[in-house]
Amino acid sequence: MPPLPPDPSRRNEHSRRAILEASLALVGELGYDNVSIEAIAKRAGCGKQTIYRWWPSKGAVVLEAATQSLNPVVVFPDTGDIVADMREQLIGILDLITTTSFGAAYRGVIAAGQSDPSLIRAVFDQVIEPNIKGFSARADLAKQRGEIRPDADAPTLRDVLYGVIEYRMFHAMPLEPQYIDALLKLAFDGVR
Amino acid sequence: MPPLPPDPSRRNEHSRRAILEASLALVGELGYDNVSIEAIAKRAGCGKQTIYRWWPSKGAVVLEAATQSLNPVVVFPDTGDIVADMREQLIGILDLITTTSFGAAYRGVIAAGQSDPSLIRAVFDQVIEPNIKGFSARADLAKQRGEIRPDADAPTLRDVLYGVIEYRMFHAMPLEPQYIDALLKLAFDGVR
Repeated sequence: MPPLPPDPSRRNEHSRRAILEASLALVGELGYDNVSIEAIAKRAGCGKQTIYRWWPSKGAVVLEAATQSLNPVVVFPDTGDIVADMREQLIGILDLITTTSFGAAYRGVIAAGQSDPSLIRAVFDQVIEPNIKGFSARADLAKQRGEIRPDADAPTLRDVLYGVIEYRMFHAMPLEPQYIDALLKLAFDGVR
Repeated sequence: MPPLPPDPSRRNEHSRRAILEASLALVGELGYDNVSIEAIAKRAGCGKQTIYRWWPSKGAVVLEAATQSLNPVVVFPDTGDIVADMREQLIGILDLITTTSFGAAYRGVIAAGQSDPSLIRAVFDQVIEPNIKGFSARADLAKQRGEIRPDADAPTLRDVLYGVIEYRMFHAMPLEPQYIDALLKLAFDGVR
């Protein structure tokens, strides 16, 4: 039997992964604005046209790389205590922002998106919409069990938890685990 | 008596105002990324060097223009009802974002700031710090009168109110007056 030819889907998967890794590493090293598709291709050991075949823009590549490192962190644990569960997830996100290239990548993508509506739409489709679904399912369970009020406004609660973290990240304001506790206390207990 | 020579401080004030107006108008028309210092100078009827004499970068000019239109809106009314007072202010901000060039200018400045730390620091000094002070004074009065709990976390409450509005603006998510009511309800009453 002749040896099998190399599997093209496996070769593609290898290139895809190399491109995503290269883009995240370069953004971490040089900052989003100083990274070009050319530099990503060179670091990944492929041609520019390979990148453009799969992604429409630098923003789209970096977004996919950022999403890939975010996804394992934004799972919704369910121990029956939504505050503790959200604390765990949000501290994981903080950690990702402060100790990996994710923060620089995500900030760069949102910044680029301010003059590229298709990129902001991609962020919504790839990051925000799945998060809305996951959070909504966890909030429904929390309502059934009385962890939160049955009439609690889960979509606005979600906006508050993730929105304030993004806000402090964009403004280079400190992000520490104690801040997550303060945010959860405010969102769950209010100020009156 | 000979006629007085033109007052140079008055001439400066005239140019300054023309530059700020031109930058806000151009950002509204063309988008932040498509506006140059040259174009601002031309529209304002002055030379580029006049702009560079007063501001270090395009971001700094646009920030000052945005701040000037924001300032009269972020006052802190005090009718003795902090929820109603904040509602009035936040709906004013929404209105500014959705019906004037302020939104495009502010989004452009924050986006540019992601690769320009001095610009993000300027946003903190010119927009966020005065807001922290104004909000803190209003929250102190609210605590004294029992509008909010004496141990309420006013700094985090401030982050929530403005942070979520910015978050929805950066992600091109809808911003409507009813949303402000939902946000205030969540921040003041919590979800448990």
